[in-house]
Amino acid sequence: MSAGWFRRRFLPGGPLPAPRPPRPRASPVPYRRPRFLRGSGSGPADAPRRPDARPVRSPARGRALPWNAGYAEIINAEKSEFNEDQAACGQLCIGRCAFAAEEDQEWLTLCPEELLTGHYWALFDGHGGPAAAILAANTLHSCLRRQLEAVVEGMVATRPPMHLSGHCVCPSDPHFVEEKGIRAEDLVIGALESAFQECDEVIGRELEASGQVGGCTALVAVSLQGKLYVANAGDSRPLPFFGHLSRAILVRKDEVRPLSSEFTPETERQRIQQLAFVYPELLAGEFTRLEFPRRLKGDDLGQKVLFRDHHMRGWSYKCVEKSDLKYPLIHGQGRQARLLGTLAVSRGLGDHQLRVLDTNIHLKPFLLSVPQVTVLDVDQLELQEEDVVVMATDGLWDVLSNEQVARLVRSFLPGNREDPHRFSELAQMLIHSTQGKDDGPTGEGQVSYDDISVFVIPLHSQGQRSGGR
Amino acid sequence: MSAGWFRRRFLPGGPLPAPRPPRPRASPVPYRRPRFLRGSGSGPADAPRRPDARPVRSPARGRALPWNAGYAEIINAEKSEFNEDQAACGQLCIGRCAFAAEEDQEWLTLCPEELLTGHYWALFDGHGGPAAAILAANTLHSCLRRQLEAVVEGMVATRPPMHLSGHCVCPSDPHFVEEKGIRAEDLVIGALESAFQECDEVIGRELEASGQVGGCTALVAVSLQGKLYVANAGDSRPLPFFGHLSRAILVRKDEVRPLSSEFTPETERQRIQQLAFVYPELLAGEFTRLEFPRRLKGDDLGQKVLFRDHHMRGWSYKCVEKSDLKYPLIHGQGRQARLLGTLAVSRGLGDHQLRVLDTNIHLKPFLLSVPQVTVLDVDQLELQEEDVVVMATDGLWDVLSNEQVARLVRSFLPGNREDPHRFSELAQMLIHSTQGKDDGPTGEGQVSYDDISVFVIPLHSQGQRSGGR
Repeated sequence: MSAGWFRRRFLPGGPLPAPRPPRPRASPVPYRRPRFLRGSGSGPADAPRRPDARPVRSPARGRALPWNAGYAEIINAEKSEFNEDQAACGQLCIGRCAFAAEEDQEWLTLCPEELLTGHYWALFDGHGGPAAAILAANTLHSCLRRQLEAVVEGMVATRPPMHLSGHCVCPSDPHFVEEKGIRAEDLVIGALESAFQECDEVIGRELEASGQVGGCTALVAVSLQGKLYVANAGDSRPLPFFGHLSRAILVRKDEVRPLSSEFTPETERQRIQQLAFVYPELLAGEFTRLEFPRRLKGDDLGQKVLFRDHHMRGWSYKCVEKSDLKYPLIHGQGRQARLLGTLAVSRGLGDHQLRVLDTNIHLKPFLLSVPQVTVLDVDQLELQEEDVVVMATDGLWDVLSNEQVARLVRSFLPGNREDPHRFSELAQMLIHSTQGKDDGPTGEGQVSYDDISVFVIPLHSQGQRSGGR
Repeated sequence: MSAGWFRRRFLPGGPLPAPRPPRPRASPVPYRRPRFLRGSGSGPADAPRRPDARPVRSPARGRALPWNAGYAEIINAEKSEFNEDQAACGQLCIGRCAFAAEEDQEWLTLCPEELLTGHYWALFDGHGGPAAAILAANTLHSCLRRQLEAVVEGMVATRPPMHLSGHCVCPSDPHFVEEKGIRAEDLVIGALESAFQECDEVIGRELEASGQVGGCTALVAVSLQGKLYVANAGDSRPLPFFGHLSRAILVRKDEVRPLSSEFTPETERQRIQQLAFVYPELLAGEFTRLEFPRRLKGDDLGQKVLFRDHHMRGWSYKCVEKSDLKYPLIHGQGRQARLLGTLAVSRGLGDHQLRVLDTNIHLKPFLLSVPQVTVLDVDQLELQEEDVVVMATDGLWDVLSNEQVARLVRSFLPGNREDPHRFSELAQMLIHSTQGKDDGPTGEGQVSYDDISVFVIPLHSQGQRSGGR
């Protein structure tokens, strides 16, 4: 997104044009369930959900996922016509052109191709329709592979060279790179950031072409060169809020470690208010960018009430004026928190056409498609047989805490060492634990009515299994 | 700063006007040393430094600072005509109007005034002349008192009420405030943020009126209601950089804890690049907002080099175009890092008139005057006799690490329990340790040629001493 594009798109000189009715040029994105569920024996994978049946589904027994990971999902209870979660996983094969000597560069394409191999697991939680999540599940891995291939020469060097060609223009180039502390993992982080943005652009184009709308959050785990990268867009609710979005955790014998990005409601709130400060046009005089503990009303006029603005982490009091009675840019608390009264997330993919109801006010300028990336140095862990990463959408975390999930993992795995399908069984068991069954292992009986998708990724001895390191 | 003001000031529709030559209407800000150094017997406090004499100065023995804190300073070695550090400390007396019943509100001013008492210690490190640091030392505490008085009713309540008057417009107001997690300390943080901004505006006006220029960093400790607030503006260099700006640390028997805000080079870099992305006019076509490991040159054209943009925490490669050869918005590394080739800090007070040499490009839009605030809950610590906070400007931290300072504190205090001047002696000893004297207690012989100012603030039994809690 360039500044010029941003201005042309969202800040026309005159009054905003009327919203264009979508002009479908392409057929709608077909609904589907993850490919690896085919043949799992619970009805056709591409059928819309039936509200009276909520089976827990897993891949067919013969169909192993990368690293023998387990997967399970359940549809939501009548919240929407289609299941809003989507999932994808697979091997990432990254082509690497061996670099020819300078005089041979014209023959570069003839050089033998080497491969860097990684693995990929992704969960997408859609809103406003299933299309964005389906497009993300179809597209993001290709974007990522392309972005990684563009920098793979730098990734396989001891330290990324200043020039991708490896040639030194300036003798102290390695020194400059070292001084900035740039490592191979920074290239993977950069590739993930660029891939999310590229995927967001694809979703925008495709939805516009097919006349569809919607958005999704994205949680992605990628294993590469002995490290696990967890990229998360959709984690940060605008207001203080704990634990209701897609999340990945590492569960070990004596440790539970959150792997999805740290929660930064402050940064998100300040970023969003700051944009409204810089471009007040984006609120079209309909919203106030200030935050108050509740929406103000006529009786508050002239009184001094608690508030904060974009530059504040603390709170202060201000005398209420008429413009403060407008609807707040960020409103509500916890699960009810909404951006421009419309959207519950401030990071994610899609939502390009989303406007505030009955207005021409766009949501997209306030949304970030860039993920936050956490790096787990798997090679540095003394891994044990039962060490796993659990990734799941919010339906699971609404009902189970990190510690409860860890307890379920630790109670299940040691007794099932011989079962080759134990990670799949564990994923199913985690979902069953959210359905309030009497025999549920938590015995706490909390029930989730949301979609849930879970990956359980075993870490032990993956170095040997995955080969291409 | 309003968005409108920002645009009028920095983004005129047409070409930028030529810089106005300063039109002095007021007399220059007079140079001075901190008031509490009067009578300390090392020459008149308001004399400019003499390069051949670098005495370590402390307040006269009869002049006790708040909490019997120690203070010492040394001028720099020929770096500038005047000493660039300034300091201030004192008691904060915050007027509090007892709130009358509704029918009596017209008599409010006749109600007896109660007081909330706090204490204040501040260090300012100037650049581009001593005026901004002197103005900050003269002004910031008044701004802070005013801001605290505006919210003190909320601070003394169990939880800040939605309405400062304490009247409930909506019965669930306390619930809304609780849900947002707003505590009394958030009002102090808000007051510190507003006070820094107000002080920055005062400095801008005063310097313009007197035809002077310059800026300063600010590190402030405030004790209030059993907590110590440390507010820091000037901490965050644009690039990864460790430990060369004003800093406050807590030193206890078994603990050394940084109290000034955590270092966030990423946030600062991204904030600055983001502003240049949103308002490319601010760079007037002279700079590139992209970050590269080093400044690019003609030989790099067409090559793929490491870079990152405002939305990236990771790195990627891009093909170098001509516009990438421009001077970078943020350039250099560590102490050499400069914003627009000019300024080494990205937070601070002043610098309103600062432009890039021979251009009309302003620095001020990229600078934040808002501090980051750390809160130490002193009442929750089991304080011991030797627990102190050490605040100092960068001259000290250039030469001594947190651990070295802690070692000096621990080696000095226990043997001097009976000396009423021991905190002052300790402050002086810390400075002597940076002068490479053979008898210096570190024996490591590193020498600082910069200005240094140090406060040593003892924490033990201050609850009783300070009274007004």
